[in-house]
Amino acid sequence: MPQLNVRGIAFDEMAGISSALIHELAGICECGTDNFTIDLLQTVSVFDGRQVDTYPFIEVAWFERGQAVRDRLAEAITRHIRAAGVEDVEVAFKVYRENGYYVNGRPCGE
Amino acid sequence: MPQLNVRGIAFDEMAGISSALIHELAGICECGTDNFTIDLLQTVSVFDGRQVDTYPFIEVAWFERGQAVRDRLAEAITRHIRAAGVEDVEVAFKVYRENGYYVNGRPCGE
Amino acid sequence: MPQLNVRGIAFDEMAGISSALIHELAGICECGTDNFTIDLLQTVSVFDGRQVDTYPFIEVAWFERGQAVRDRLAEAITRHIRAAGVEDVEVAFKVYRENGYYVNGRPCGE
Repeated sequence: MPQLNVRGIAFDEMAGISSALIHELAGICECGTDNFTIDLLQTVSVFDGRQVDTYPFIEVAWFERGQAVRDRLAEAITRHIRAAGVEDVEVAFKVYRENGYYVNGRPCGE
Repeated sequence: MPQLNVRGIAFDEMAGISSALIHELAGICECGTDNFTIDLLQTVSVFDGRQVDTYPFIEVAWFERGQAVRDRLAEAITRHIRAAGVEDVEVAFKVYRENGYYVNGRPCGE
Repeated sequence: MPQLNVRGIAFDEMAGISSALIHELAGICECGTDNFTIDLLQTVSVFDGRQVDTYPFIEVAWFERGQAVRDRLAEAITRHIRAAGVEDVEVAFKVYRENGYYVNGRPCGE
């Protein structure tokens, strides 16, 4: 955690920015880079009866760290994604509660 | 947004109903059809030691619009999915908060 | 429901433990085994510019049943996954509200 769950962005685009992006996000969160994961969800999208490109979307799953940190993460993610050549992107945060998140069976909070 | 994140329904089934479905959902939400996305998540399902068909499931990710709109959306989605030949389907709503959802780096609320 | 949405664990590993796992989870939840689904989400993961194995992660989507049941489910899932040869695994719970979850168009709560 945080997890970046990505749709609609190509592997090569994501791979090219992954080092610099995660380094910056880790600085904002004041944690190690190895806390982050980037998973590209495989999707097929449809609109108006035909297959279309999946809209670029990144869901960040994390423990709540407040609006200021959230804004900075979203800004950094958006900037890196756009630098990779993706014009429009949406970023949404999904909150896990510490007492509902288990690492090797142990909850992260009470 | 709203996003329809679909599992266990074939591309052709979804494509065949997509135009009429999104048109009706946009009417209920009083927004444009281009606010909607339909992403089919690629899954492999297992039960009792063997591969099985993925259970038809649609998660609607949205900003909360209240029970009346939610009920109408769920009814419309279910009706179209069944018209496509899928007998049983479950629909669940996932709520994003406006201040945790960013379009090109700008939050949708405060 | 509950749904087990799995990333980073191979089909054969999951298939091999699926019967015993779901039997135990159903006992904890005091419901039938056929309430459960196991969906493996197809992902490609990236870190530091290259493709990496997806980190083993299971999201349990359910209606809230409280900390005691949650702890027992997480413990059971972790134990079975580790018995399948996966050393590290994280388990997180996502809560659906009964009035936002529809089975064939009918909400599960008010």
